[in-house]
Amino acid sequence: MWLRTSCDLTFDITVPTPFILMLRPRSGAQQWIAHEEYKLTPNVPVFEFTDSYGNLCQRLVAPLGIFSIHTIADVITADNVDQAPGAPFVEIQNLPDTVLSYLLPSRYCESEKFSEMATSITSGQQLGYNQVSAIETWLRNTIRYEPGSSDVPISAVEVNSRQSGVCRDLSHLGIALCRSLSIPARLVVGYLYDLEPMDLHAWFEAYVAGRWYTFDATQSDLKGGYVAIGYGRDAADVAVYNQFGPPVYPMEKNVEVQLIEKEEV
Amino acid sequence: MWLRTSCDLTFDITVPTPFILMLRPRSGAQQWIAHEEYKLTPNVPVFEFTDSYGNLCQRLVAPLGIFSIHTIADVITADNVDQAPGAPFVEIQNLPDTVLSYLLPSRYCESEKFSEMATSITSGQQLGYNQVSAIETWLRNTIRYEPGSSDVPISAVEVNSRQSGVCRDLSHLGIALCRSLSIPARLVVGYLYDLEPMDLHAWFEAYVAGRWYTFDATQSDLKGGYVAIGYGRDAADVAVYNQFGPPVYPMEKNVEVQLIEKEEV
Amino acid sequence: MWLRTSCDLTFDITVPTPFILMLRPRSGAQQWIAHEEYKLTPNVPVFEFTDSYGNLCQRLVAPLGIFSIHTIADVITADNVDQAPGAPFVEIQNLPDTVLSYLLPSRYCESEKFSEMATSITSGQQLGYNQVSAIETWLRNTIRYEPGSSDVPISAVEVNSRQSGVCRDLSHLGIALCRSLSIPARLVVGYLYDLEPMDLHAWFEAYVAGRWYTFDATQSDLKGGYVAIGYGRDAADVAVYNQFGPPVYPMEKNVEVQLIEKEEV
Amino acid sequence: MWLRTSCDLTFDITVPTPFILMLRPRSGAQQWIAHEEYKLTPNVPVFEFTDSYGNLCQRLVAPLGIFSIHTIADVITADNVDQAPGAPFVEIQNLPDTVLSYLLPSRYCESEKFSEMATSITSGQQLGYNQVSAIETWLRNTIRYEPGSSDVPISAVEVNSRQSGVCRDLSHLGIALCRSLSIPARLVVGYLYDLEPMDLHAWFEAYVAGRWYTFDATQSDLKGGYVAIGYGRDAADVAVYNQFGPPVYPMEKNVEVQLIEKEEV
Repeated sequence: MWLRTSCDLTFDITVPTPFILMLRPRSGAQQWIAHEEYKLTPNVPVFEFTDSYGNLCQRLVAPLGIFSIHTIADVITADNVDQAPGAPFVEIQNLPDTVLSYLLPSRYCESEKFSEMATSITSGQQLGYNQVSAIETWLRNTIRYEPGSSDVPISAVEVNSRQSGVCRDLSHLGIALCRSLSIPARLVVGYLYDLEPMDLHAWFEAYVAGRWYTFDATQSDLKGGYVAIGYGRDAADVAVYNQFGPPVYPMEKNVEVQLIEKEEV
Repeated sequence: MWLRTSCDLTFDITVPTPFILMLRPRSGAQQWIAHEEYKLTPNVPVFEFTDSYGNLCQRLVAPLGIFSIHTIADVITADNVDQAPGAPFVEIQNLPDTVLSYLLPSRYCESEKFSEMATSITSGQQLGYNQVSAIETWLRNTIRYEPGSSDVPISAVEVNSRQSGVCRDLSHLGIALCRSLSIPARLVVGYLYDLEPMDLHAWFEAYVAGRWYTFDATQSDLKGGYVAIGYGRDAADVAVYNQFGPPVYPMEKNVEVQLIEKEEV
Repeated sequence: MWLRTSCDLTFDITVPTPFILMLRPRSGAQQWIAHEEYKLTPNVPVFEFTDSYGNLCQRLVAPLGIFSIHTIADVITADNVDQAPGAPFVEIQNLPDTVLSYLLPSRYCESEKFSEMATSITSGQQLGYNQVSAIETWLRNTIRYEPGSSDVPISAVEVNSRQSGVCRDLSHLGIALCRSLSIPARLVVGYLYDLEPMDLHAWFEAYVAGRWYTFDATQSDLKGGYVAIGYGRDAADVAVYNQFGPPVYPMEKNVEVQLIEKEEV
Repeated sequence: MWLRTSCDLTFDITVPTPFILMLRPRSGAQQWIAHEEYKLTPNVPVFEFTDSYGNLCQRLVAPLGIFSIHTIADVITADNVDQAPGAPFVEIQNLPDTVLSYLLPSRYCESEKFSEMATSITSGQQLGYNQVSAIETWLRNTIRYEPGSSDVPISAVEVNSRQSGVCRDLSHLGIALCRSLSIPARLVVGYLYDLEPMDLHAWFEAYVAGRWYTFDATQSDLKGGYVAIGYGRDAADVAVYNQFGPPVYPMEKNVEVQLIEKEEV
């Protein structure tokens, strides 16, 4: 399906503030960006680089006053998310080198603490996709999804203790559970068509049978319409913006995802 | 200045043909892409990756029939190219690791054969920027620039023997001369505002005083208006398209660079 | 000074166990490995790769029975650690891209929680090296260094609450404090000559004035004799060994660091 | 089999000379280094880095006077080289991104000029391994292998015109022929047990059926005993040493490869 995604952010800057933005979706295996806008007002010098996860990041210093970021992308993405019940676990020794770091604990995914819990949740499941699927179902049924309830990422341990969280938080717990079973897992930040209420979204991917599969415990079933902006070990690696110095919050934030016709692109 | 660049290519494909395209300019230190379109007709699956030079490359298989590629970018780029007469040579031992490969000979820059010639051309010059500047001037005065005269890249040795060439060929000779003096040099492919006749363009950069500087022997003086698409050791690394299987040539190729107002972006 | 370092590990393996080892010190700016041994008994197939921090990692599956790892390196390393009182803070916008990830919170360094505390500890200090130095002194005077007290890494928050820890734990707190001040900081694991009691060691580095500087709150003053094995954001990234499946602990572990004469190498 | 390889180089340096050495074999899929020595006399500061092909490179400035390099490695390597008649060609669109650059022409492998010749040599062969095998056989029967005949690399075109060359030269022609058929191919420099006369050696690898396979037209049949030091597109990328400034040649060069017992390591 063709989607038009947009994200607008406006800040009131009181001291010149270094930012690292991650707002340029990359064309990749799953999606193709046919049209893109990325505007800054006022127009300041920007340096773009690729981080160690392959994300495109934009560095700049926001000047005093109103600073706004306006991005639009027309993207073709899959109508349906690939699912693969029965897809097998990959033995550690057979994982590609580049996937290994997604087995380690990270800031918000204290995977070393979830071994027993993950074993119990996935009890009786075939190793691999079905284990992750059982984790997703368990999250969906157990952890209350409360969109918009928090701005600060919380870790898997905290999510598990609160028994509720935003999309990112549920993903953190899902990732920690996967990694504790030696299944590589990573966080994805991006857009989802028809998300209610509309906002930036986060979900997770697990590596089984030689590739990454999408999981999302916030949705009752896995439909298509995902547009990825960034990948990382957890929310510490994939912030839509990182800002340094005294904290600054967006005065305005507007996210939209519309279905479009190919002809409109 | 704000520029709108476009490149359209149309092929008549008679057997399904794998392509690697390099047609997405990257936002970087020197330029910022505020608006971009990248359309393929028909719309086939594309996989984008970053090559070892940091270029964004697009892989696809062109299907039978008419296949067209349409790209547009609105870019802000410098009004003037930085120049730095007197900027010093960087001793090999002080070069960053990532720059070292630009000292080696490559497919179209047989730098190991130009040591004497480069020494003679740069005789009396201060080591560094001024040597490269002398090479650029020598190329401008010696090698006839014949735009459109050739489609196949030729190497520094061949350019020197023919005493003429297209922009890419002059750059190859410039690069080989620089490297023979232990100055890292690389090829850049992209657009140039006001280029006569308008086409895709190629120029070269040399690394002195801790950064890359732009040189272009095809222009009588260095103005601004450059938009880089790709960087590499020579034309073997930076082809706007690489195609595999029986050779296919564009039926149509249209390149444009317009000056625009910021408001039009 | 020339040092001979050795680390021997012996495991009793009851199910075939995938390991990722990080036991090969790299030759680099600070140290040169003139002689090295790396033996596995029994001798199993090993695959070596470079992780995203530049560490050499060795992957293998340990077979049933006694499995031992024996490593020796003869290394030249600095007699004194570079110190640079007054070396300035690097503005975020001037940091190299590759250093940016060392500003983010990580598994054991919850830097987003230490902003006030770091400001208070470094109050009155010149921005940069002196701030890190004040953090190091504060750690030395405040957090009890209890070598050998723990095998499991603990995070900066936990270290701060316990007010004691092993070398790795003190480093985690030091790193979190630095990052909260926007100073990039990383963990180093390796050897230290004359460490009491002898064991593998951990310390931290902070990036000021354009390079990494060494800090170690476990030593009363900074002498030379450091040999680095691995670098990372924290202990999650730099484990001497990561092991998957049911936990396995070394039956024997022996670490030695001897001063040698150049002639003995 | 266990091998002890050694390479000693001695230079008489008359002006301080920057060197980039590539003399540290890496442990990898095919070989494991259990013991290694790398000594420089006099002992100068060395900086080691990993190049874009994954090779470990050592940078240094050789001081005035006699400068010698002494390296030894005890390596376990396969008794036999894997062979796979019938292993299929990989379609361009299915090649991993990292392999694509080995399809392009490079300094000494002008692959774009060998299309017809390669088609004729491999006529009637199954696509993939058998094509490369036919190229290897053709090289063995057609191009005279003259070890020690040349110190300067020559390109595929020159080798084909001379109809003779050293190991590196034959490999260049083999690589160019493979690439012209869209089979990725790369040069390997290293040691070979029982090579006659003993010296550093070069061979080539081709990518078919999802992995790299070894080919060597200088040997009448493919035995084991290969120890790789470096990989690259051709000899421009994989020089055992690159030296800058006025040319310097080794006064002495001694290469040895001995079969050893595991117990001797």
